[in-house]
Amino acid sequence: MRSVEWIPDGPAVRMIDQRRLPGQLEFLTLRRPDDVATAIADMAIRGAPAIGAATAFGLALAGSCSDADDSAGLWADLEKAAATLKASRPTAANLSWALERVLGAGRAVIEEGPRAVRQALVEAAQRLADEDVDINRRMGQHGAALIPDAGTVIHHCNTGALATVDYGTALGVIRSAHEAGKRVHVLVDETRPRLQGARLTAWELDRYGITYDLISDGAAGHFLRTGGVSAVLIGADRVAANGDVANKIGSYMLALAANDNQVPFYCVVPTSTIDLRLPTGESIPIEERDPAEVLQLEVAGERVAPEGSQARNPAFDITPARLVTAFVTEVGVLRPPYPEALASAAERALNR
Amino acid sequence: MRSVEWIPDGPAVRMIDQRRLPGQLEFLTLRRPDDVATAIADMAIRGAPAIGAATAFGLALAGSCSDADDSAGLWADLEKAAATLKASRPTAANLSWALERVLGAGRAVIEEGPRAVRQALVEAAQRLADEDVDINRRMGQHGAALIPDAGTVIHHCNTGALATVDYGTALGVIRSAHEAGKRVHVLVDETRPRLQGARLTAWELDRYGITYDLISDGAAGHFLRTGGVSAVLIGADRVAANGDVANKIGSYMLALAANDNQVPFYCVVPTSTIDLRLPTGESIPIEERDPAEVLQLEVAGERVAPEGSQARNPAFDITPARLVTAFVTEVGVLRPPYPEALASAAERALNR
Repeated sequence: MRSVEWIPDGPAVRMIDQRRLPGQLEFLTLRRPDDVATAIADMAIRGAPAIGAATAFGLALAGSCSDADDSAGLWADLEKAAATLKASRPTAANLSWALERVLGAGRAVIEEGPRAVRQALVEAAQRLADEDVDINRRMGQHGAALIPDAGTVIHHCNTGALATVDYGTALGVIRSAHEAGKRVHVLVDETRPRLQGARLTAWELDRYGITYDLISDGAAGHFLRTGGVSAVLIGADRVAANGDVANKIGSYMLALAANDNQVPFYCVVPTSTIDLRLPTGESIPIEERDPAEVLQLEVAGERVAPEGSQARNPAFDITPARLVTAFVTEVGVLRPPYPEALASAAERALNR
Repeated sequence: MRSVEWIPDGPAVRMIDQRRLPGQLEFLTLRRPDDVATAIADMAIRGAPAIGAATAFGLALAGSCSDADDSAGLWADLEKAAATLKASRPTAANLSWALERVLGAGRAVIEEGPRAVRQALVEAAQRLADEDVDINRRMGQHGAALIPDAGTVIHHCNTGALATVDYGTALGVIRSAHEAGKRVHVLVDETRPRLQGARLTAWELDRYGITYDLISDGAAGHFLRTGGVSAVLIGADRVAANGDVANKIGSYMLALAANDNQVPFYCVVPTSTIDLRLPTGESIPIEERDPAEVLQLEVAGERVAPEGSQARNPAFDITPARLVTAFVTEVGVLRPPYPEALASAAERALNR
């Protein structure tokens, strides 16, 4: 089961509606590129690699939906759809990366006419999605060596099959260690405000038969300080050229707590998440989302925050490169100095 | 309005039921010491100074409820009640401190017979509660000087009137700065899992006319890193002789983020919270509460965590003394080295 896939009959993009998990496993079938952009913005699908694949399929859908009968008209429709998709969420690097890659495939055959372009878009999107699964499995293998047997690890947000096309980044490493026979226990940050840990990571770990305990995000420091945690694993939404990491809000404080206790802090990312055009994390746009996400909590059917409360809701933060012990990518484990290691990894990935 | 008070008619201990806030302002009227212990254990009342006062009144109630007609019989009943009260929550220093103080007042008049003992207990508890309000106001005055005009501060958990008999510790400092005409904006950590920030601190700030934004606990690091935060303020449940601080879970990660960005981190505590018998934070007992507190969240009427999920729920963590910029106490602002400063402050408080 993939988090997002192409349905040739229609055509359409089908994805798990992650907002309904863990209560219901439901699928959205989207027939317009604008609906894909809305699904990304509303977080029916989330996680940088999954957003990348959804964007790729959204652009393929724009090609199929366009009624232009020449390449110029088709290209205008594609650029309009690309702009809408690009605006859906600002932080994930994979979104722009996927657009560029799929548009590039179309551009390469533009002289052959609109039918060839449409077909190239679909094939490029499909290839991108297939490669994502392969890349995740390779990251899992590289990363599993870093996880000791009978270890406890802390995991933030959701980085599993749901955050990718399938398998996962940081959670993929945990799965890979588990599949290799290592006993791994996971302390799952619930990950306020959207609770991707409590909703999605817990649901995935249940399916894989990996034991876990949910914890409040603020409790990670206690477990790191009092011992018994072997590693902290996160994914990323964008990595700058110097190794600064944009990831789900709370990652920075988690990295500080790992660092203060000499526990390794690993960031598991496909090279498509590395944005060498940005020198540091300071240039990464940080999305601030609707305060309602913070204010909507209920306990025993009653809303928690007083009526009229205001909230601030930054969705991501920047973890400085100095707090990252290593990056796990599909081309291997990268250690500092990161400017050289990241540039070299991106190049190796291109030449594979 | 006090969070907890003595009702001579009855007699009884009356307290705000903080579990019902912010939706309902309701009071519990407790007529047996065991009911006071249960109210503390169930967190109808919480906050180290408020727990201290509730314990004092609970012991006074034990005296009044005892039908012993000699001092020996009365004393046996008091010791039984003291043991029950002491077991209600393990971390707050003020609980043992209040028991010792009120028992001491009874012991001083034990030769005068049970009636004198009963009266001494009530008077000692009443005095302890009155002094708490006075101590809070003095901490507020000492601490307000540390808050710049037009500053934004981050506050964890609830440390206001509800966490004390009245006025507050860290929130008392914020109130005092506000009452002195300073413009203070508060970023309120919602404080998972019990959400004392979203429930109680937001409710108090609304009443005082102090502006605030609620934030997820993990977002504090982002605001500290991106600038504009003048100070972080917390209370404490127990401070060891070396300055290590036991406080609400999440405090340690918050202290790390303040430290990493050179933002002052202040711990506002009455000297009754300082436990000079414990050399370091390693000796402070950390309560682990019911996993249901982590698992009970709902959004739009649906439970978030999958059925069958497990959770870990440490209620407090230890912030090492090296991360505390200063302690604000009723006898003044204390700077490192803390072993000397804390011992001297405790002595000055005794001699006032």
